[in-house]
This record gives sequence, structure tokens and C-alpha cells, in this order.
Amino acid sequence: MKTYYKTEEWSIIEEGFSPEDHKKSESIFSIGNGRIGQRANFEEKYSGESLQGSYVAGVYYPDKTRVGWWKNGYPEYFAKVLNAPNWIGINVKVEGLELDLAKCKISNFKRTLNMKEGYLERIFTAELENGKIIKVLAKRFVSMANPELAAIKYSVTPINFSGKISFEPYIYADIKNEDANYDEKFWLEVMREVESNAGYIIAETKKTAFQVATGMRFNITQDHVSFGFDVVTYEKEKYISNHVTVDCKKDQETVLYKYVACISSEYYDKKELLTKVKLLANNAASAGFELLLNDHIKVWDAKWKESDIIIEGDTAAQQGIRFNIFQLNQTYTGEDERLNIGPKGFTGEKYGGSTYWDTEAYCVPFYLSTADESVSKNLLKYRFKHLEKAIENGAKLGFKNNAALYPMVTMNGEECHNEWEITFEEIHRNGAIAYAIYNYVEYTGDKNYLAEFGLEVLMAISRFWAQRVSYSEAKNQYVMLGVTGPNEYENNVNNNWYTNYIAKWTLSYTIEVLDFVKNHDKQHYNEILSKWNFNADAEVKHWNEVINKIYLPEDQKLQIFLQQEGYLDKEQILVKDLDISERPLNQKWSWDRILRSCFIKQADVLQGLFFFEKDFDTETIARNFDFYEARTVHESSLSPCIHAIIAAKIGRKEKAYEMYLRTARLDLDDYNHEADEGLHITSMAGSWMSVIYGFGGMRIKNGELHFNPYVPAEWQTYAFKIKYRKSLLNIKISRKNIDITNNSDVKTIFYLKDKQYTILPNEVIAVSNDLKLSVSE
Amino acid sequence: MKTYYKTEEWSIIEEGFSPEDHKKSESIFSIGNGRIGQRANFEEKYSGESLQGSYVAGVYYPDKTRVGWWKNGYPEYFAKVLNAPNWIGINVKVEGLELDLAKCKISNFKRTLNMKEGYLERIFTAELENGKIIKVLAKRFVSMANPELAAIKYSVTPINFSGKISFEPYIYADIKNEDANYDEKFWLEVMREVESNAGYIIAETKKTAFQVATGMRFNITQDHVSFGFDVVTYEKEKYISNHVTVDCKKDQETVLYKYVACISSEYYDKKELLTKVKLLANNAASAGFELLLNDHIKVWDAKWKESDIIIEGDTAAQQGIRFNIFQLNQTYTGEDERLNIGPKGFTGEKYGGSTYWDTEAYCVPFYLSTADESVSKNLLKYRFKHLEKAIENGAKLGFKNNAALYPMVTMNGEECHNEWEITFEEIHRNGAIAYAIYNYVEYTGDKNYLAEFGLEVLMAISRFWAQRVSYSEAKNQYVMLGVTGPNEYENNVNNNWYTNYIAKWTLSYTIEVLDFVKNHDKQHYNEILSKWNFNADAEVKHWNEVINKIYLPEDQKLQIFLQQEGYLDKEQILVKDLDISERPLNQKWSWDRILRSCFIKQADVLQGLFFFEKDFDTETIARNFDFYEARTVHESSLSPCIHAIIAAKIGRKEKAYEMYLRTARLDLDDYNHEADEGLHITSMAGSWMSVIYGFGGMRIKNGELHFNPYVPAEWQTYAFKIKYRKSLLNIKISRKNIDITNNSDVKTIFYLKDKQYTILPNEVIAVSNDLKLSVSE
Repeated sequence: MKTYYKTEEWSIIEEGFSPEDHKKSESIFSIGNGRIGQRANFEEKYSGESLQGSYVAGVYYPDKTRVGWWKNGYPEYFAKVLNAPNWIGINVKVEGLELDLAKCKISNFKRTLNMKEGYLERIFTAELENGKIIKVLAKRFVSMANPELAAIKYSVTPINFSGKISFEPYIYADIKNEDANYDEKFWLEVMREVESNAGYIIAETKKTAFQVATGMRFNITQDHVSFGFDVVTYEKEKYISNHVTVDCKKDQETVLYKYVACISSEYYDKKELLTKVKLLANNAASAGFELLLNDHIKVWDAKWKESDIIIEGDTAAQQGIRFNIFQLNQTYTGEDERLNIGPKGFTGEKYGGSTYWDTEAYCVPFYLSTADESVSKNLLKYRFKHLEKAIENGAKLGFKNNAALYPMVTMNGEECHNEWEITFEEIHRNGAIAYAIYNYVEYTGDKNYLAEFGLEVLMAISRFWAQRVSYSEAKNQYVMLGVTGPNEYENNVNNNWYTNYIAKWTLSYTIEVLDFVKNHDKQHYNEILSKWNFNADAEVKHWNEVINKIYLPEDQKLQIFLQQEGYLDKEQILVKDLDISERPLNQKWSWDRILRSCFIKQADVLQGLFFFEKDFDTETIARNFDFYEARTVHESSLSPCIHAIIAAKIGRKEKAYEMYLRTARLDLDDYNHEADEGLHITSMAGSWMSVIYGFGGMRIKNGELHFNPYVPAEWQTYAFKIKYRKSLLNIKISRKNIDITNNSDVKTIFYLKDKQYTILPNEVIAVSNDLKLSVSE
Repeated sequence: MKTYYKTEEWSIIEEGFSPEDHKKSESIFSIGNGRIGQRANFEEKYSGESLQGSYVAGVYYPDKTRVGWWKNGYPEYFAKVLNAPNWIGINVKVEGLELDLAKCKISNFKRTLNMKEGYLERIFTAELENGKIIKVLAKRFVSMANPELAAIKYSVTPINFSGKISFEPYIYADIKNEDANYDEKFWLEVMREVESNAGYIIAETKKTAFQVATGMRFNITQDHVSFGFDVVTYEKEKYISNHVTVDCKKDQETVLYKYVACISSEYYDKKELLTKVKLLANNAASAGFELLLNDHIKVWDAKWKESDIIIEGDTAAQQGIRFNIFQLNQTYTGEDERLNIGPKGFTGEKYGGSTYWDTEAYCVPFYLSTADESVSKNLLKYRFKHLEKAIENGAKLGFKNNAALYPMVTMNGEECHNEWEITFEEIHRNGAIAYAIYNYVEYTGDKNYLAEFGLEVLMAISRFWAQRVSYSEAKNQYVMLGVTGPNEYENNVNNNWYTNYIAKWTLSYTIEVLDFVKNHDKQHYNEILSKWNFNADAEVKHWNEVINKIYLPEDQKLQIFLQQEGYLDKEQILVKDLDISERPLNQKWSWDRILRSCFIKQADVLQGLFFFEKDFDTETIARNFDFYEARTVHESSLSPCIHAIIAAKIGRKEKAYEMYLRTARLDLDDYNHEADEGLHITSMAGSWMSVIYGFGGMRIKNGELHFNPYVPAEWQTYAFKIKYRKSLLNIKISRKNIDITNNSDVKTIFYLKDKQYTILPNEVIAVSNDLKLSVSE
């Protein structure tokens, strides 16, 4: 771990070019708008190490799974986020010699990610092998205002000569995924068209037949004035470009503006794509770079108003949390219920860009509190729309009667994981999907969601749990055999406490929701029962039997819940006694040794104690925390945030801060030496939770908003925004006071350390640490 | 299941050509000699469905493993038996038209595997599309007398015309494996040479750089007389051939004799290969087909004298058991300690031709009783020679102090399985390797083996077990977590009874052998201790602690040993209550459902009760048998034989016969519809055991030979040969008498139903069922 980037509040800055850090920086400086994502690859040719990445939301490839010997039920394919046609490319030649930063002397290199305004800028001075020195400024953004557009400003100034500089803006569709199971290419060309100052390629994915149309227009200015220039068009299979050679004077700036439109058949009829992409690129070029950028900045401004966290007294922490919020906001904007959040967002290929339970467990809370409720609602509806597929998935594994097993990993509702163990066994994901419904309704108060969407999902999941348990004659209880809990350093265990608990909870909650819908929307209730052939009496009776008789392993002596049956048969070693040379275990130990050990990859029992906190007293939570935290290696980025939240709750403030630090700058400081593969987008929501749920002590209890905040010793103050139903609160916590500002026009009730307060529109309330109140406006 | 082949005592006969059965027949009619194996592919071109298979012992390819996400310790490659250069090929043209049985009218087709004499013969009459009718006889063998040779007699007789028939004998090395993980070819050409009447190719495997030299010579006779003919030689990359066109008269037989030599760099310096292969092919051609065949038949005659089983009253059973013995004898001849027995022998690519624990558990008993002790000794030395690699394998998984984990699957001592679960978890194989040493020494009395080879292997395996267990504070016992027992329908279970038992047994036996070697060969003992840095006092003390405190799960109420801890938490359903539509489970159920179910793929607890029978009383064995047999689906070919033996022992005669039938004609009757992929060679040893250990009740107890035979109700009599130390006994069992003949020149003591008998050289003893004795000579 090293602090490589400059620590600034609103920017990530790399000063000096470091080829060995370049792939990491390509991830860190990624930009996106929820529909298009782009790693910080260079516009000009770069022959050094690079992970090219242009991504288009919703466009994926089902790559045949790699498996030794096939067995029934194995997922057929692993969905891959596709590296899409390259739209950033501008080859540059200086007096005939190609600009390639791997072959130049570079000085004054500075790469900036401006998080406030959402753009990437790079400046450098390069001396080419022919001795020519140029100064380059490259600035680009993918528009948050119009998610089908991106724009690049590429400026070149000769420093020690006057001469010819040529530009070749291009689109390149003969793209490979680094992550391809059988080393195949995934794109076919549908058509290409090139003309002066413009060009278009429509490419289609193999198997899935998604079409992506990428179009470019460009113009060139010298001394801020557009001018005519000769263009040579060029095309070959999957490639179009324009060649322009410009006479440049010493110290004279030449700027190429490249306007890009990128649309897919997910949003347009395939027949329309060409017309539409031309129109979009044209309009963008007419509007011009600055206007487009301004529109873009306005959207970012609004985003920050709803989601910013301000930390005083710790610039690194400030930068870290803003980076997390920035990345989350540019990964998912919530307008399209067909989209979701891949663990790496638009910053790499790993995990295939598919949807995991990360969404429900980590991301939904973030979007609930920082965006309109429609955003998290769309995340939930994503699963609702996959209900039929989840039922098919259940049926494939032998479950009957419309029981749904949601996939561990999915693009379109089908299971598409690379590993059967996880697919078959890590079924607790089904519980997280149910929990997200509960969480959403509790937070938003949108109880209509239940009859409209929620109940059907809950019923199908409950039907799964009711079949997935089996009755043990030996125990006279219901057991759940052959699962993997959130702790993926176990495999095929019996009676994982978390899974059994969330199964039990889902059954109870579904019964509650059935009652609610029955009483409030009888017509919908009857329709749903009839649609799914639900025998309410018999099924609920069985569910209640399972609820009452499900086995939840615990140890009487230690008074803890057991991660799984037999966990205490493992040799009990504490993480603190592990030699540093053995960490991380997943790189140093063989997989079987990890499986046999007591070490825990990520919160498992503790994940349950976080979700179901209200079912347990603080002592119980503390006992379990102390036991499991000592055995947890946090080799998943999703782990520390849950520990941070619980540690904060039970008063382990130092531990809470330590855990917070583990994720807050995980990628910026590249703790795990893997940021080059992409960023840990979903765990960024966990960092946000560490602050809001952890230090801020935010909870929804019985639909009411609670805070129980403190300031970590390392900070002076911090403040965060919370969208809660119709209100938008700004909560600023200092060691003396808690200042709450109501930035909305609705009266809001909230609780501070269990004491109720009412805040009027635009009111500011200051509460001292002894809970004394002062109000201003 | 259908009886497709004619039921004859000494032959397998297919009458009529059935393209849809052809791939199966290619397996069934395979021939081999322990060094070369060849599926019953046609010599002439065949454009129908076929699995080409020519195999050369010891020549393999390490194919990169297919795995979703790599984890530490996973095997790097899956070793593949290689489909080697084709040496059988003879293209035939009749008046210019290619003979291809997929395109002819065929009559009088008859394919015969003569098991007594070890050759394959095929006759048919074919009417080509040009109306020409020919009669063909093709006969071939791979020599048991000289394992580097094979010969083909290919005879063509025109039936309705006189005209030109051309022959193109060839060698073809541009061969593919059907089983290739990434669809690559594995052979490169080193050189080729072609001349009139002869040709040679040396091909080399990628990565492993094995070289195989294949040479051919041929001659042609008409009316039994050799004659001169014009030859056109032809060659291209990886291909050489001769073209000969012969004028044939109606009803005149033209015979092409193709003599093939096939040798590898496993036996010769690469530089010598060409010279040697030429010499061999030349000598073979000089000797001629009939002479070579006679030498070959003599070897088979000797094999049958030592290994035949004769069943009266049941021709199908007779044919079945002979087929098993025939295949075993042509798969492994025991001269080379670097070779072993792949589950499919030389009959297909499945399981990669690698060595599994099948060898120690199933094949060693067969070869112990039917061949010179050097044969089974070589099988044991194979593992001795892999000891260093097994220690490396252990170290790779984190085991220290020269602890050996023998691979689940291997070619050269390295682990090369396709599935990590099995590799890491199915460690009971280590026990079977120890057990084979015990078994060999008990059977042969060759106690020198212990100091010379056995002890070092035992020590290293015991060191593994002593580390692989861990101490459970919860149980105050040693436990073994995360294993898979022989029942591969479980994964990652804790305290598999069989594994724990065999671990305990290995530790005890190693201590016993340490004592023995210490007392009988002190010098060797000291050398071994010093070589392996063995601290006898401390290590043995720890081993004894493990022996005394290892957890062996059992159920007090049912009084059975538990397959694994928690087995009774599974829903207990009996196989008899499974609907037929759900069988076989491995085709009908998803893998996770199989894992969760109580159903057992193959003998697991019962495997232990078979190995360690003497540790348990008959009632205990019977209780466990009744419990587990009711839950066993026998979806491994290795399962029924163990059940047959135990059933016979505890007097469940009908069950014993039912179980025997499950494997005895498994491939001949193609129970599992998979004989096309190759034969179940190692399970054939199990069939043999069902007869000898099951019905014959043979056991070695304290180094003494026991029988406790009965005749299955379906048979009149049966007789088998047993090599026991220096003697060769023939035991014939009828309902009245047991006749024992001593076909050796040593006096032999044996026990019949626990009563001791002494038999002199060449004596015949008849014992009536009331154990009354009569002796003759």
C-alpha cells in the first residue's frame, strides 16, 4: 500500500507518468455515466502495458463455462461484460513519427480526475525520438446529461519546432476481451461508414446479437478558430478513421474535438441505429465541447447535492469517500430497470460486469439514501423482472411449485457463474433479495410496492426455502445442508447460521406481507394467489412449521451463533497469530487448507447480525463480534464495512475506524494490488455505509429515521446528506454539536440517540452532545 | 441393456453391421498388449461415426486444466492418454472407388474377438456404389510375444468381377484427441520416410516431447503367393503411404499383410528410434504373419493357464468373466514399473488413461492371484518411484516434513485431475496405496519389500495423515475435515468414517512395519530414518495419540458406522423408493441435489469393511451392509463388486449374484450406454474379485490362504486358478464337491471353510460339502 495519488479533496491527481502504475491508473481514472464506461486508456497509441476497456451497459457475451467435468445443473456460460468498440482513439503523428508515450521522454505529466465536474484531464510534454517536443492536453467526459454522448478535447502544441502534425481519429471494433475463456473474439461487424470528419461502425455481439453503434464527428481548431483541412478517409473490417495533417507553428495550439455517440440495440430498433447515431454525433458536434461539458457538470452538481460527504480534518478520508461516491454515481444512475451494478462497474472485466447480491446487500442502502426512491426501486424491479428465470433456475435444480432461486451471478436473469460450488450452494443470495424488499419498503414507506411487485418475489423465494430445508429425523428439526454462506472460505457446509436465519426471516416476512396485501389490496392478493397457484393455508402452515423448527446452530458455552454446524471442530487460530508471510491466505495457502481452516473471508454470522440487529441485544452482538472478528481475514472487499458498522454500534470505535480505512481508500491506495483489474465498485457502497450506518449510526426502525452519531478520533467534523422519503437532510457532526439542516420543503421527524426531533423545511437544528436543542433557519 | 453380441464361451461376436453400435464395438473389440492398444477401428476408410484410438503406453499430454477461477493448489493440467499415430490404415479402392462401409451394401458382416488367441477378425461382403462386390477378411493382433509389433492380414476377393483393386497402406500422425480441453492437436512431426513397401514416421508430443516411431512394411499375396507389384510412394506432413494397384480375378483372394512396429522414446534413445523401428518392421515382415501369430497365441495360452475362470451352466457368465480377464491381461502385463492401468485401459480417452486408486484397490488383487508376483510388485513400485512427487504434492498443499499425498490421478507422479474437489479432498487414496503394500506382503510373503520399498512410502503417507487430522477442542478428539470418501456423491464432508479408519490403520501398520524393519534389517532401518529425517520416538508417539483419539463417527441407535458426521441429518430415502425415471441420478438430478441426498455412488463404509473385514464381526458387517446397500445407487462401476463380496460373506446370496451381474457384463451388455467411450477396465478386476473373493470366499488371513466357496444358484459349477506364492491351484466348485488341483511343484497349505488342507505337487483333492476329503493324483 502506498499513497500514490495526490491527496486533494475533489480530485485524484497523478503527477509524473509511471508505466508500472498505468493499468491501475486506467482503472482509477475511469469515467462513466451509467450507460457508457471508459477506462482511462490513452487516446493516442500506447504500446506499453494497458487494459483497454470501453463498456456499454447491458451488452454482454455468454462465454462457455470452463469446467473439468460437466455435471447436471452447472451454469452453461459465464456472462462477460464486453470490451466494446474503442471510441477514444486518436492516433497522432509528429512530423511523421507516431506519438506513443512508451517511446517518448515525458515531462510534466499530470492526470486529473475532477470528481466535482466529472471529467478526466491529462497534460504532458513529450519529446519524441525525432527530437520534436510537444505539449498535449487531453480532456474527456462521458455525458451525465445525455448518456449516449461523450466528447474529447485533444490539444497539441509544438514546443521546439513548427511542422506537420497529423491526427487520425478512429473507431475500432475488432476488440478482444482479456477475459475470454477460450480466447475468442466476441464482436462481428454489421456495417461501417466513413466520410470526411465522421465515421460509424455498428458491431454485433456473437450469440447475444446485441448491436452497438458507435459514431464520431470531429473538428479542429487552431488558435481557437475552426478551419478547413484535408481529410483522407480510411476503412477496413471493423475499423474506420480519418487522417488529417495540420501545419502547426511553434507554440501554436491545435485542438481536435472528437464527439462520440454510442447507442445500442437495447434502446433502439436495430434498423434505427445508424440514423440515430449519426444524428446524435452531429448534434453533439453542433453543440460543441464546452456546452456539452456544462450540461454534464450541472448533473454532477445535483448529484453531489444529494450524496456528498464532507470530512474535515482528514483530506485523505475526504478524497477517499468522495471517490467512492463519485464512482457509484457514475456506475448506476437508476433510470433503467434492466441495468444493475457489476462488482467492477465499468472499470474492468473481472466478475463479468454481472449482478451479484452485492446490489441488494450493499448498493441498495446507498441509493436509498442518496437518490430518488425510483433508483432503488429500479434495482428491485430488476429482480422482479427476472422472477420467471429464477423459477426456471429453481426448476433446473429440482425445485417445484414455482420456487425461485435467484442466480448468484446474472445478466439477464439466468445463472451464469464460473463456479458450480457457488452457484449451487451460496443460496443466501435469495435471502438478500427478499431483505432488499423489506429494506426498501421500510425506508421509503412505499407499501404499494408489495402488492405490485414485492409479494410475488417473496412468495417464490419462500417456496424455495421451504423446499430447500429438509427434516432431520436425527435432530427433529429442519436443517439446510450443503450451502456456502457469505464466507466463501467454506464450501458445502451444513446449517450455515446466516443462511438458516435469513431463510426463516424470509418465511416470516412473506407471511407478514401476505397478510398486509390481503388486508389492503384484496383484489391484487387474489390475483397473485391464483396466478401462482398458491395454497395459502397449506403453504403458510408448512412455512410456520419450518420457522418454528429450523435448526440454528449455536454454542452454549461461548454463547455465540455458530457460523455453521461443526465450526468449532476446526482448529481455532486467531488472525493476529497468523504470520504476515501467510497473508493474504488466498495467495499463500492452497484452497483446501483455506477451506479447512477457521479463517473467515467476509462477514457471515455478522452479516446476519447487521441485517437483523433488532432481533438481538447488544451483548449478544458484541460476543459474536469479538469471536468472529478475531477470525476474519477480510479478504473480500465487502467484509470490513459490516465489521465497521457493528464495531461502531457496540462502541469499538478504534476497530470501527480501522475497518472503515480498509475499504475507504481500498482502490486509491491499492491495498490488494489488483486495482489494475478494475475498481471495487460495490464495496464502495460499503464504505459509504461505514460512515452513515457506522459513525453516523443511521438506522430505520419501524419506518422511522434514527441517528446515533459520533466523530472518529481522526476527524474534526463530518457531514452527510440523507434523502429520506420526501426530505433531504444534511447532518453535520462535530465533537460538540450535531447540526441538522432540512434542505427540503417537508417537515421531517427523526431521532437522535433515540430522542425524537421534528425539523421544518429549511430549518437548521443544532443539538449539543447532551442533546440540548437550538433551532435556526 | 441388450445382449447385442453373440454369447459364446471364448469369443465376442457381432453379426451384421450396425453403424449405431459401431463405436461401442470399437471399444469392445479393442486389442492390446500392455504397450500398444488399438480400438477396433476399420483398416479401410470409414466415413461413419467412429472414435479413432491408437494408444502407446506411457505417452501422455498435459492438457491445461479447465477451471472457472483458478485457486492456489489446483492441478495445472489434466493428463491425457494420447491418440497416437494411426498404424492400422489401409485405404482400399475397387475399380477406382473407395471402399467405405458407410457407403456400401454390406452382408455377412461378422466381427470376432477371439479371446483364447487374442486376435480381432472381421469378415464381410460389400457391394460398392459401382456395383462391384468384394469379400473382405481383416484379421489383426498386437503381439503379446513382442509388444513392439502388430500385424494385419487384409484379404480382398472380388465376387462379381475381375478388375483393379488398389491398396494404400499408410501411417498417419496428424491425429487429434477427442478429449482436448482447448481443441488443440498434440503431435508434431519429427521426421518421416517412405520407400517402396515401407514407411516410417516419428512424431513427438507437444510439451512432454515423447517420441513415437511407427513403421510399416507390407507385402501382398495372390493365391497365397507373394508377387512383385508397382508401388507409388506418397508423403506429406505427418503422413506416408504406398499406393499399389493389383489386377484381381473374380474369386481370387488378394491378401495384404501389413507389419507394424511401434516404439517410443520411453524405451529407446530418440536417436535410435528410426533404426530400431526399421529393424523391427523388417524382422516382422521376414517372420511373416502366421509365425508372429503363433508366438502371440502361445503367450495367451500361458496367460489363460494362470488366470482363467470356467463357469458351467451359464454361457453368458462364462463369456462375461473371460472378457474381463482378457481385457485385464491385455491392458497390463507387468513388465514395466513405469506403467499402470487407466480406468479405460487402451480402449478410449476417458479418464485420460491415468492412474487412479483403482489400481491398488481393485487391480492389485487380480494380478496378485493370476500372475507372477513381479507384476503386482511393479504396480507397487510405480508408487514408490513417485514418492518424491507425492511429497512435493503434499508440500504444495502446505504439508511439511516429507509428508506424501499421492495424487488422485497421475501419469508421472504429479497430480493431474480435472476437478479440484476430488484432488484436494479424496485423500483416502493415500490409504489405499498403503493398504496395497500390506496386501502384497500378506499375499506374497515378500517381507523384504518392506525394507526395500514399502516402509518409506508408508512413513511418508503416515506423516501426511498425522498432519491432515486436526485436534477438535469441541470433541477432544482428532478429526479429519473437508474430505470426500469413495462415495463421490459427497463433497467436502467432515470425518468420513472410511478415510478416518484407513488413516488410523495406516498409522498402526506403519508402526508395525517400522518395528519389523528395525528388528530384521537394522541397517536399512537406520538408513531410512536418516534419509527422511524421521524422529521415531516423537513421531510414533504422536501417531499413537492420533490412533487412540481419532474420531470415528457411528450411530448408537442404529449401531452402524456413519459414512460421515451428520449423514443421518440427510433425508433418509431408500433406493427402492426412487422412481425409475430419476435414475441414474447423475443424469437426472442436478449435482447439488445429489450432494445433499443420502444416495451413495459407490461403497464407502463398506469399502472399509471389505478392506478391514477382520476387525469386525459378521453382525456388524451385516448391519452396515443392510443400511448402506439400501442407499447405494452403484453409479460407479467400482461399487457392485464390493457389495457382492460382502453380500456373499454374510450369506445374502441373491444380492451377491445381483451385484456380480452388475459388473460382469457391464460393457458387453452396455448397461450404462457408454461403452462407446471405452471399457471399464479397472472395474473388470472387481468382477473377478466378485467371483474369487465373493463366491469363492478367498481370503488371505495371517498370510494363509482361505476359501469359503459356494456355487451361485444360477450356475452348475465354476472353477478358477489361483497363483499363491510358488503354487498354482485350480479350484473347481460344484454343489457337491470342491476339487482342488495343485498345478505346481510345491506343496501348498490352504484352508477350506477354516479347515486346513495340505496339497502336494500335482495332487488333486476333492472335498465334499461336508468337508470330507479324497485325494488323487
